[in-house]
Amino acid sequence: MTSPSLRLYELVLASGRSASPYVWRIRFALAHKGLAFEPVPLGFTDIPTVLEGRFKTVPILEHGATTVGDSWDIAEYLDRAFPEAPPVFSGPAELATVRLFDLWFSIEVLRRMLMIYVLDIHNAARPADRAYFRSNREARFKGTTLEALTADREARLPALREALLPLRLHLARFPFLGGQAPNYADYIAFGAFEWVGSVATVPALAADDGVLRGWLDRGFDLYGGAGRGPGLQALFDA
Amino acid sequence: MTSPSLRLYELVLASGRSASPYVWRIRFALAHKGLAFEPVPLGFTDIPTVLEGRFKTVPILEHGATTVGDSWDIAEYLDRAFPEAPPVFSGPAELATVRLFDLWFSIEVLRRMLMIYVLDIHNAARPADRAYFRSNREARFKGTTLEALTADREARLPALREALLPLRLHLARFPFLGGQAPNYADYIAFGAFEWVGSVATVPALAADDGVLRGWLDRGFDLYGGAGRGPGLQALFDA
Repeated sequence: MTSPSLRLYELVLASGRSASPYVWRIRFALAHKGLAFEPVPLGFTDIPTVLEGRFKTVPILEHGATTVGDSWDIAEYLDRAFPEAPPVFSGPAELATVRLFDLWFSIEVLRRMLMIYVLDIHNAARPADRAYFRSNREARFKGTTLEALTADREARLPALREALLPLRLHLARFPFLGGQAPNYADYIAFGAFEWVGSVATVPALAADDGVLRGWLDRGFDLYGGAGRGPGLQALFDA
Repeated sequence: MTSPSLRLYELVLASGRSASPYVWRIRFALAHKGLAFEPVPLGFTDIPTVLEGRFKTVPILEHGATTVGDSWDIAEYLDRAFPEAPPVFSGPAELATVRLFDLWFSIEVLRRMLMIYVLDIHNAARPADRAYFRSNREARFKGTTLEALTADREARLPALREALLPLRLHLARFPFLGGQAPNYADYIAFGAFEWVGSVATVPALAADDGVLRGWLDRGFDLYGGAGRGPGLQALFDA
């Protein structure tokens, strides 16, 4: 199944690699549904220059005359617009439970990742985006420099690894967070690791974290290797 | 729909109140499916004396000649044995995602509750159960007394309340964790609050925690007030 009219606005680094955890959720959701799309790569400072500046963040999905922002709105839109393709959500109870997972994951995992990798993201961004990224993110932290925010980051790695314990226990029972098959909870988590793996100069995970390594390996291979990038090596201690 | 042959072995306190968070999950699941059952109240020390000592924990469900232990096994059994009653799980993806929620909730919330309320549980147990409960639980903590384990418990209340932030954010959007209708994630969390509310001598939640109060109030009223007990008042600061 292809849909030549789908365009996905995404965030790219100097390497050209797509590196927003929220865009990656949609890349996986599109692959899950077997939908082809045209990527529209943007840097941080390009976002206000497209679509009349109506969106402040990516992903943005264009589908013919329809434009949808916000990854959750896009994920739900895909099931409405393509009901004959494999559903992202089996129904409202799964959707709500995955939204709850997203809140937990954002608070306990994504926030910790951001505080460890925010300087790495800056350094991996396109040179033209770096000044904007620095001033925007430093303003969020009351003027603290990215260097100061990350100075003790290695001391905060254990808490990040510990926060992933529920995933590790779950994945000892199931191949995916969604059970026998991946669901949007997997895509949320894969997206975070795609993002970190694209920028990390210190590994997020321990070398012996075999359960998470196996799951990430399975995930990055899904849908013809849609998620396979340079990331897996950067994620683990040597 | 009634099933006179269903018996639920549960744990009771000196008050006679059912007070295992795992039993409460099944009480809610049975009510969700509209299944009547005969409660079999046990104290901690009674469990090895029933069903030839085959089970070390409750809940235990007897359904005719079938006996099932472990709350997850029972929840899944109910959908298999009563396929015409409302399903507890809409399908395998919802089930797996709720299991992941259970792991997060157990690590971040239930563990904290236990460390705050373990002495209260002891004091609320039937007198005949208290010596067993104390020695069993103190052994799990290398001989530390229940009094020592809970000495600084008020200082640990903020971390418990903070750990519930994902629920609070979710319930600002949906009436239940499961979305527009409660699902087993709600029953897991309601069960924890039924348990704490039955024993607490210090409130788990702040008086102004309106989002959680509204949700617990809705939850305890479900299914003809199946969960309505003395608990709600004990859960909140005055």
